[in-house]
Amino acid sequence: MRALVLDRELKLRADYPDPVPKPGESVVRVRMAGICGTDLELARGYMSYRGVPGHEFVGVVAHTDTPALAGRRVVGEINAACGRCGFCRAGLGRHCTDRTVLGILGRDGAFADYLRLPDENLIPLPDSISDELGVFVEPIAAVYEIFEQTLLGRDERILVLGDGRLGALTALVLRAENYAPLIAGRHRDKLDRLAALGLQGRLEKDLKPGFDVVVDCTGNSEGLNRALDLVRPRGKLILKSTAAAGATLNLAFAVINEITIIGSRCGRFAPAIAALAAGKIDPRPLISEVYPLDDAIEAFAAAGQSPNFKVLMKL
Amino acid sequence: MRALVLDRELKLRADYPDPVPKPGESVVRVRMAGICGTDLELARGYMSYRGVPGHEFVGVVAHTDTPALAGRRVVGEINAACGRCGFCRAGLGRHCTDRTVLGILGRDGAFADYLRLPDENLIPLPDSISDELGVFVEPIAAVYEIFEQTLLGRDERILVLGDGRLGALTALVLRAENYAPLIAGRHRDKLDRLAALGLQGRLEKDLKPGFDVVVDCTGNSEGLNRALDLVRPRGKLILKSTAAAGATLNLAFAVINEITIIGSRCGRFAPAIAALAAGKIDPRPLISEVYPLDDAIEAFAAAGQSPNFKVLMKL
Repeated sequence: MRALVLDRELKLRADYPDPVPKPGESVVRVRMAGICGTDLELARGYMSYRGVPGHEFVGVVAHTDTPALAGRRVVGEINAACGRCGFCRAGLGRHCTDRTVLGILGRDGAFADYLRLPDENLIPLPDSISDELGVFVEPIAAVYEIFEQTLLGRDERILVLGDGRLGALTALVLRAENYAPLIAGRHRDKLDRLAALGLQGRLEKDLKPGFDVVVDCTGNSEGLNRALDLVRPRGKLILKSTAAAGATLNLAFAVINEITIIGSRCGRFAPAIAALAAGKIDPRPLISEVYPLDDAIEAFAAAGQSPNFKVLMKL
Repeated sequence: MRALVLDRELKLRADYPDPVPKPGESVVRVRMAGICGTDLELARGYMSYRGVPGHEFVGVVAHTDTPALAGRRVVGEINAACGRCGFCRAGLGRHCTDRTVLGILGRDGAFADYLRLPDENLIPLPDSISDELGVFVEPIAAVYEIFEQTLLGRDERILVLGDGRLGALTALVLRAENYAPLIAGRHRDKLDRLAALGLQGRLEKDLKPGFDVVVDCTGNSEGLNRALDLVRPRGKLILKSTAAAGATLNLAFAVINEITIIGSRCGRFAPAIAALAAGKIDPRPLISEVYPLDDAIEAFAAAGQSPNFKVLMKL
């Protein structure tokens, strides 16, 4: 099959072996996939990942032993868990210590004609959610994860720092849930485009400290420290980006100001699917370009360019 | 008056000017003061502090306009706040942005014959609490601060990492509140002495990850990263030391494992005084040595030596 393969560098291959499902797994033919900041980080060496990247997708179940899944259009939770450990029994397979993670850790991902996932990870998509919408289920679920981890007060001043794809989705989800976040970044043009979606924006350089909650979506160490500076004493800093590995952070500031820092990663798909099906969120204006898989290298280059929010691949 | 003065290096002076109280402030004659890890950090340059260090003390009110305080034996909350800002109105003067902090920020501290503090910071000490006990009110209050910031489950596995004065006090408070913390560090002799106080200890090198809550009392960047490694996914890391300014921390680990990091500093005095008065905590076995103020330089040297938990000065 065709696959975009990361082996120190990205290469498009036409002869990559088809996935061989293990017992309890199905094979999915990928229809559409999204490029995420994590994919760009992986290409730069994060996690030392080797294999097919890609973890945001919509596909059709091509081979399965589970009749209810046969031929269904699905999305897939990316953490493939053991199902037996304490985390799995607690419904937190996302933290199973034996997990593989689609396109990130020990499991080939979605930038290929086919992928395999455990049946319990595959969730049929309602017809009302198009492929273009469905490809956002995974990143939107990651934003909904915030609500599973902490309470955000209705009167709290919430800042989303970072005007890229992650910041934009985060702000859209918060607004859909009736919060009024401010989104800030360094790109006037992007903030203008987000303003057209109803999101209140501000240039990062014009911000003053004192936010009750700051969601760091900057994806870099400098932005992370700026995010920390902007939180009021006793406030919350929510980390939504793994780009900050080995970041140098002034944690004395966090201690003195008693800031709570909340690491936040993947979320359950159900709230994201419900929000998309209900039309509470429409992230389609964030789609900058759609490339065929054969142009995957160009798609990655485009995804790394600042003016673009979201770049998709259509297979 | 006599004072230990930090001006790039520590010097004992006999001719330091007496404190001049501002309106609403009283002057306290210091009777006993404790050396804290923060004092050692200040001496190494932390906060660029110049002046008299010392923020743990028991004294007697020597000059005051408040009859109820005259001649009373007191302890003092170390954050002197404006009383008017939003934080002050919310009862969080500890986070007043205009605050000075006794012996730490813009206000001479307790390693001197006299100090001044706002009247509202001074709290009379019950007769049942001796000077030796009372000098622990401030650091014990800082441990009780944890309970004001987060809920600790009765069935959670709690690790106190660091077998120094901060770790020992933290573990004693947790035990007093009916938790069963494990305390870990690198010093078999100290862990043995803490075991004699009923604290379950373990060498840090023998620890395995998976704690629900880790309280970092190591006071260094290496220990902080070790503390993070020991927290289970979705667990809590509580930072009780400001020594980690500019620490390089693998925050990607915190994001992937969705760890909540809670910065924690000063606490209200009331719960600490109540616990000492009720005999729930007896930190006196932690007192390694008591020096006269005239030997303050030697006292600081002793406080920095590993086998010692707590070094006091008696004036």
